[in-house]
Amino acid sequence: MLGKFYGLGVGPGDPKLLTLKAAEVLKFVPVVAVPKSRADRDSVALDIARNHLSPGAEILELNLPMTSDPVVLEMAWQAGAERIFDKLQAGSSVAFLTIGDPSLYSTYQYVLEKLKGIAPEVEVETVPGITSFAACAARVSEPLASGDEPLLVLPAVDEKLGEYLEQFPNLVLMKVSRDMERIMAEMSAHGRQALFVSRCGSPQEAVVRDLSSLAGEKVDYLSLILVGPKGE
Amino acid sequence: MLGKFYGLGVGPGDPKLLTLKAAEVLKFVPVVAVPKSRADRDSVALDIARNHLSPGAEILELNLPMTSDPVVLEMAWQAGAERIFDKLQAGSSVAFLTIGDPSLYSTYQYVLEKLKGIAPEVEVETVPGITSFAACAARVSEPLASGDEPLLVLPAVDEKLGEYLEQFPNLVLMKVSRDMERIMAEMSAHGRQALFVSRCGSPQEAVVRDLSSLAGEKVDYLSLILVGPKGE
Repeated sequence: MLGKFYGLGVGPGDPKLLTLKAAEVLKFVPVVAVPKSRADRDSVALDIARNHLSPGAEILELNLPMTSDPVVLEMAWQAGAERIFDKLQAGSSVAFLTIGDPSLYSTYQYVLEKLKGIAPEVEVETVPGITSFAACAARVSEPLASGDEPLLVLPAVDEKLGEYLEQFPNLVLMKVSRDMERIMAEMSAHGRQALFVSRCGSPQEAVVRDLSSLAGEKVDYLSLILVGPKGE
Repeated sequence: MLGKFYGLGVGPGDPKLLTLKAAEVLKFVPVVAVPKSRADRDSVALDIARNHLSPGAEILELNLPMTSDPVVLEMAWQAGAERIFDKLQAGSSVAFLTIGDPSLYSTYQYVLEKLKGIAPEVEVETVPGITSFAACAARVSEPLASGDEPLLVLPAVDEKLGEYLEQFPNLVLMKVSRDMERIMAEMSAHGRQALFVSRCGSPQEAVVRDLSSLAGEKVDYLSLILVGPKGE
């Protein structure tokens, strides 16, 4: 009998932000799949979940490189799905860990699609997780958005940022580390204030309200910026 | 000594989607504040959290009517904050429960602002929660947004919906119950497919992929619609 496949959101960093459901699944699941982007970097998702794993759990490291090359990505997702399927076929359930929430910008969705291609009959359960932006807003006890105001979540900064800053009162800018100079320039050009948070809920957490103080600094890749009416 | 004030997200409905942190706070906090919008309607947030309360916990029902009258609202938030402050002043910590996440469209933020006005020295901790849209996407194991695509969250439908449907690949429409006819018309006019979910994770859950089947139906007030590229 095939094992069951779980996609588990483990939240952004604080192990206490795991859901009861995710902790429950981790307690019994024999195989935990963790995406690994570089050989020299530990899996953040695994660090968050570590204390909840069953003692004998097997860690299945999936090599999922951070690249924009579609051929390399497709191959990595397919290879990951095949390794997961091997375990499922052996009767073991597998939990795929994802930082934050598995429905938002997660490799989980791509691997899941490949897995469904291999074996459409696999039973799948996705467990939502606390998003990084909800945790950051909670960290400072400020709203992401209130009343009838829209919230725009941007996973990457493109040429439309200026337009969006004029159009929307509340924005979340994710994965900002490579675009800090440009973001700072746009914020200042459009008169918007922002809150910068990196590694929210982890021992390395940093919260910065004056973006200009980050000029020239190297910024952690798990960083985001909240733009809201409160800062203005 | 003043008690501590907690804002707790309890997620959208399934009690297992509480975070470990929220469950931990509920276990020791002597007073639990719950917003109540109508005398004849039970608090959904309290229902979700009920099994985690300490046996002797006091339930502080705050009358927070669903109205758009700013004077009535301001008075209700102020009165709620004053009742909470009475408990804090007596040395009891208070947890304010909120469905979903306390940073997104929650009354918690307004009550917190009033409380800070009464007693800026109160210690506050906000615990993030699973958002309804993350739970709904997980329910069907589909992404809310992928790659570099933005996600637009709309708490209310206004005249810009059509424009947004053209502009963005992924949208979340919250609190849709009063605007279903209009939303169905716009979806059809802009050739977008959508997923309707009400009471996600609760025994009353409903998932509907063909919006037209809801024509003329009464829709639960805890309903949302996910619009994404997958449906097209």
